[in-house]
Amino acid sequence: MSKEITPRQQDYSQWYNDLVLKGGLADYSAVRGCMVIKPYGFTLWENMRDALDKMFKDTGHVNAYFPLFIPKSFLSKEAAHVEGFAKECAVVTHYRLKNDPDGKGVVVDPEAKLEEELIVRPTSETIIWNTYKDWIQSYRDLPILVNQWANVVRWEMRTRLFLRTAEFLWQEGHTAHATQEEAEIEAKKMLDVYAEFVEEFMAVPVIKGVKTESERFAGAVDTYCIEALMQDGKALQAGTSHFLGQNFAKAFDVQFLTKENKQEYVWATSWGVSTRLVGALVMAHSDDEGLVLPPRIAPLQVVIVPIYKGEEQKALIDAKADEILADLKTIGIRAKYDGNDNNRPGWKFAEYELKGVPVRVTLGARDLANNQIEIARRDTKTKELIHADGISQYIDGLLLDIQNNMFKKAKTYRDEHITQADSWDEFVQLLDDKGGFILAHWDGTAETENEIKEKTKATIRCIPIDDMGLEEGVCVLSGKPSKRRVLFARAY
Amino acid sequence: MSKEITPRQQDYSQWYNDLVLKGGLADYSAVRGCMVIKPYGFTLWENMRDALDKMFKDTGHVNAYFPLFIPKSFLSKEAAHVEGFAKECAVVTHYRLKNDPDGKGVVVDPEAKLEEELIVRPTSETIIWNTYKDWIQSYRDLPILVNQWANVVRWEMRTRLFLRTAEFLWQEGHTAHATQEEAEIEAKKMLDVYAEFVEEFMAVPVIKGVKTESERFAGAVDTYCIEALMQDGKALQAGTSHFLGQNFAKAFDVQFLTKENKQEYVWATSWGVSTRLVGALVMAHSDDEGLVLPPRIAPLQVVIVPIYKGEEQKALIDAKADEILADLKTIGIRAKYDGNDNNRPGWKFAEYELKGVPVRVTLGARDLANNQIEIARRDTKTKELIHADGISQYIDGLLLDIQNNMFKKAKTYRDEHITQADSWDEFVQLLDDKGGFILAHWDGTAETENEIKEKTKATIRCIPIDDMGLEEGVCVLSGKPSKRRVLFARAY
Repeated sequence: MSKEITPRQQDYSQWYNDLVLKGGLADYSAVRGCMVIKPYGFTLWENMRDALDKMFKDTGHVNAYFPLFIPKSFLSKEAAHVEGFAKECAVVTHYRLKNDPDGKGVVVDPEAKLEEELIVRPTSETIIWNTYKDWIQSYRDLPILVNQWANVVRWEMRTRLFLRTAEFLWQEGHTAHATQEEAEIEAKKMLDVYAEFVEEFMAVPVIKGVKTESERFAGAVDTYCIEALMQDGKALQAGTSHFLGQNFAKAFDVQFLTKENKQEYVWATSWGVSTRLVGALVMAHSDDEGLVLPPRIAPLQVVIVPIYKGEEQKALIDAKADEILADLKTIGIRAKYDGNDNNRPGWKFAEYELKGVPVRVTLGARDLANNQIEIARRDTKTKELIHADGISQYIDGLLLDIQNNMFKKAKTYRDEHITQADSWDEFVQLLDDKGGFILAHWDGTAETENEIKEKTKATIRCIPIDDMGLEEGVCVLSGKPSKRRVLFARAY
Repeated sequence: MSKEITPRQQDYSQWYNDLVLKGGLADYSAVRGCMVIKPYGFTLWENMRDALDKMFKDTGHVNAYFPLFIPKSFLSKEAAHVEGFAKECAVVTHYRLKNDPDGKGVVVDPEAKLEEELIVRPTSETIIWNTYKDWIQSYRDLPILVNQWANVVRWEMRTRLFLRTAEFLWQEGHTAHATQEEAEIEAKKMLDVYAEFVEEFMAVPVIKGVKTESERFAGAVDTYCIEALMQDGKALQAGTSHFLGQNFAKAFDVQFLTKENKQEYVWATSWGVSTRLVGALVMAHSDDEGLVLPPRIAPLQVVIVPIYKGEEQKALIDAKADEILADLKTIGIRAKYDGNDNNRPGWKFAEYELKGVPVRVTLGARDLANNQIEIARRDTKTKELIHADGISQYIDGLLLDIQNNMFKKAKTYRDEHITQADSWDEFVQLLDDKGGFILAHWDGTAETENEIKEKTKATIRCIPIDDMGLEEGVCVLSGKPSKRRVLFARAY
């Protein structure tokens, strides 16, 4: 496979696929819409998962595990929920194969038909609330603050690596509360956790908001979201947190005895982020040479590449590399020495650039003689010669600097791509010419929202939670009054 | 739900279920054969998983993720493999539901039938080797040392919490090598990793061995295993590591260019342990009062319970508890203070005993006045008064002592239950009267193995790898010559 990356300007979509495939993050699989997450991509996901998991635990949550399968009848118990998920789910109908009487293969055994079909979970609200019914009797059993790391399946017709796959990995938090207020606070708290994670670990700036009714999660009262901007000017929903009201408690009859000795339905939230975030990460930072990964979650933070002639130089450089490697590992930096003789330095430079390793250390014989080391950073593509003493401390500071710089750069781009539009013509032109987020007035009706979507493919990404766009005006399409601007964009 | 545990002697099977359910490890679910792993049980699994994951990484392995679904035709490509798994797999046949025209629910949409059915993975050799075909061209691409943490489904007819469930969590290592020797070394190395983990973290002694042909993994050339003994004298297979030869490489046509420029089939191993280990842990150590968990993997290692009268005493004890808790956390001990006023000390004692918390610290006003603290250990049910100064260091040492003592106790029991039988009568009587492992001669034929199984329900657990039973003799059933004794037992 050629390692060449299609330039962004030439074909953005192919550029993205090249990065994912050639950068070693994932592969297509033999199963329609399902991908293989390769070791490099999975290590990246592990780093993201571990950071998130710690944040969940620090905010009082515990992990549990619920069945992969959901009885078909469970889906129907919440009306909006079944409407949202029934059309794209994998259905298990049989539990056995048998030898094909006519050939060498195997066929489904018609005698092993399930009495009730099972759905491969597209999300777990139903099976979890059916379980919570047994766990919750009184207010003493509340709150329940449970998270699950799991695989889920949604039979999407058009799939893209990481961004939209039939099977994907995610976490889904499912909490149960005694009061509406507590559940609403929880939903917002987890949105804050997501925003903090995406900004501080992934170096991707996000806007927090609430979805319109038509973009809400199927079964939610309110869906909060964080929205990020990709380099092609399209938005990407990076995480959602739902206030579910009492919808699932009512669907599964989960009541509790209050302190005042009354029976009440339990209040709920759910919240999730998925391997989709890997796609967001790739699209937010990478360039035409390859991935650019933020140090805090990069599988490899530093690579050391030797340049030498002959065994004598090699031995000196190997020794120095071992010393630096040991120092870096002592202070918790993920580093590797690539002393493989089969590949030339130039090949290695290109390879680690493609893989987005934040810092490259080049050990050359001549520099070492001067007690100097060349350090190249991936984000700015700059190089400098550094005094060899205290090199690990220098790199430690540099990694932090890269992390901050990547966020700053992404934020500058994002901020430059939040534009106000005050007329329909302006709205359409901005979308086509510049893209990005458009802050515009909307009359609050689903009809207008839908008409805008049909005309331009732009959707309301969110109604910002903070005061962004908080001023009265008139709808760009209908001219009817509007209390505040909302955030439009074309989106992934 | 009553917290009472059925005594082992009365009903061993019910005792086990009581421990799992009342100890808060797992629940039955609405889906046949699938369980819910509750937070306490899941934290235990997380601790086991994290320790194993570190051992895998320390031995050079990386994690990846492959699809949940396997095309039906893949299963048939390896003859023994399909024979082993086709009879118990969940089959996805459709990808959509639609509203039931006759009612309120949803039904399978007959128009959304898959062209080829998908199997929910019972194990991933086939989908992985189909992928490795793309990853491996030359000897430079080898070895591949990949592990996957995943859920798998085997439609077992008779299920038991943790021990045998339709869906379970596990890890499956899948490695690819250039030579037979390297693959065989890998398979044995991972068996050693499993043995080390089960003995040193779970405090359960194991015997390493190799399976007979009829007990081999479907598709393996050799299946290595570790076998543990439960308190009812039945054996439990705690982990397996398979040398797969070139079987899957041939089935999926995975060849590589050797250094000598020849095309050869790749050599393979696979190895796995599952949530079944939680069941083994429960059955190996627990007693009639509840779980007994080894400190290294216990979700909670120390619980502090206050005993007081009035607010003044409470305030003093709270302060002391906070101090101890902080000290324990500083040295990395998982500890909790249960100052909940709603429950009496006696209730708490029983609760944490049931949950198997290794160390209980009781803070009483009178003891504190004497600068003393009561420490109770779960494994021996002994209590002692300890000087309050340096209590955290004392507990640190005690946890190590408990870990070692639990292993020693389990090993003593296990060693007492390895018995030699030299005649058929002796064999049968030992099985019925004492149980445990029986070292007996076997003539090496599948016929005899099968006849013994049918007559006694005992199977050959393994042919030990070391010199256990390494002496010539005659088969207990057939009287034919035998080169060495093998290990029989009734098993889970």
